Amino acid sequence: MKTYLDCYPCFMEQALRTSRVATNDKKKIKKILDETGAMIKNMPMENTPAESGMLVYNKIKEITGVTDPYFNIKQQHIKEAKTLLPEMEAIIENAEDPLLTAIRIAIAGNVIDLGINKPFNLLEDIKKILTQEFALFDYESFKKDLTAAKNILYIGDNAGESVFDTLLIRQLKKPVIYAVRSQPVINDVTIKEAIDSGLDKVSEIIDSGCKAPGVVLSHATNKFLQVFNNADLIISKGQGNYEGLSDENNTIYFLLKAKCSVIASDLNVKEGDIIFKKA
Amino acid sequence: MKTYLDCYPCFMEQALRTSRVATNDKKKIKKILDETGAMIKNMPMENTPAESGMLVYNKIKEITGVTDPYFNIKQQHIKEAKTLLPEMEAIIENAEDPLLTAIRIAIAGNVIDLGINKPFNLLEDIKKILTQEFALFDYESFKKDLTAAKNILYIGDNAGESVFDTLLIRQLKKPVIYAVRSQPVINDVTIKEAIDSGLDKVSEIIDSGCKAPGVVLSHATNKFLQVFNNADLIISKGQGNYEGLSDENNTIYFLLKAKCSVIASDLNVKEGDIIFKKA
Repeated sequence: MKTYLDCYPCFMEQALRTSRVATNDKKKIKKILDETGAMIKNMPMENTPAESGMLVYNKIKEITGVTDPYFNIKQQHIKEAKTLLPEMEAIIENAEDPLLTAIRIAIAGNVIDLGINKPFNLLEDIKKILTQEFALFDYESFKKDLTAAKNILYIGDNAGESVFDTLLIRQLKKPVIYAVRSQPVINDVTIKEAIDSGLDKVSEIIDSGCKAPGVVLSHATNKFLQVFNNADLIISKGQGNYEGLSDENNTIYFLLKAKCSVIASDLNVKEGDIIFKKA
Repeated sequence: MKTYLDCYPCFMEQALRTSRVATNDKKKIKKILDETGAMIKNMPMENTPAESGMLVYNKIKEITGVTDPYFNIKQQHIKEAKTLLPEMEAIIENAEDPLLTAIRIAIAGNVIDLGINKPFNLLEDIKKILTQEFALFDYESFKKDLTAAKNILYIGDNAGESVFDTLLIRQLKKPVIYAVRSQPVINDVTIKEAIDSGLDKVSEIIDSGCKAPGVVLSHATNKFLQVFNNADLIISKGQGNYEGLSDENNTIYFLLKAKCSVIASDLNVKEGDIIFKKA
């Protein structure tokens, strides 16, 4: 997906929001805004928003010296998600279609997104999403691809949401490789949060090589690209990964909640819609 | 009032919104965003938001060649306000306190603000504001100052709102000078729209010299400064003029609806509150 004009004011908003998490020093924050503004001309519309977003988050690290401003918040979200885990397990166990219910819970976790300026209440959002109709729903095709699949790549998105990814991975009943960001960016899952979420017990965790808040194939490691190209089935969580992979031809299923008007418009759905879409 | 950190992403949003009114050419819009971003470092927090906003609107003119993107919209708002005029006159005539009711209607007109990303419905908003409680209300002091005043300066804000300013000016029952922007900026009132609104029939219209979406005293003409300093009473409409004059010691009454979080926070009120405040 390319960058839309509406993404540029959003980059400035993200710069401000994350700067405030990283520092209280208003002069530093103004400097981050100055330099983010000056970088807009280096963010072509042909790039994905995640690629340009990375420049913003790198600038925040550079100016504040804080490499992981959301560290504590990520830990808190993982803890919160873990307390809900037994309840979610019971819901899946008692469901008519446990796979589909696990997919719904994995999407519900996608509300934990600090790149977006929307408040969320995890338990309430899950309850809503458990019965919400999908705007795009390639489930029948997914079940066929899953039956045939030998190698599955699951690309994680946010920390906290990652806890619920374990539930879906269990329902896949196949070997899964779980890919994470190679360094902290917003509240996205890295190796540390993946292990804290229990993903090492249900999958092989790999570092994608990506430092952007979404997969950028040109930044990926050879290992990731090999896994990506060999996978019979890829599950891509969240907006950032959709941005990077929406134009690829692999067997990718995008699992996300459309949380901003730009993504909603690109998918031709409404803001707030839930999506399970084959690429 | 100084510029707050939250104003900077808003400048980018304003740049995008107004660019889209001025042109359909996405390359030009991207160029405006690039150059607006690059100007952020030239927008110190010590300046008023209106001063920095001016740079954005000038850039849009420079790149698109469109000097008055809101020309038609301003005309439409003036027309719409004029159709409501007889109804508003009747409300004032039958009111227990016609002066206060005219003040309320003049504030209600302040919802017609295209620098803010909020939809409005003029008639509905007026009805609401006619009974809404003021968050800041220096009316008793205003009546005393009005009784003593010989020269009144009334600083206009948006076109359309300007039609309702005629009603308040009539209730003041004193000679009034009405100041307008010296060139088109957003949907602010210039001499053309002031005359179209009927202000020439109730006041002497002067050009403030200001090209920003709010009075900036350092840009003002000598004539305006003379009127400003000699006025016994000044009525300042809207957010942009508040930004430029909130630190002055003249007898200024700010009449506005707080339409953004930054202004609301500066005034220590809530977004959506209506204000009638002595400087």
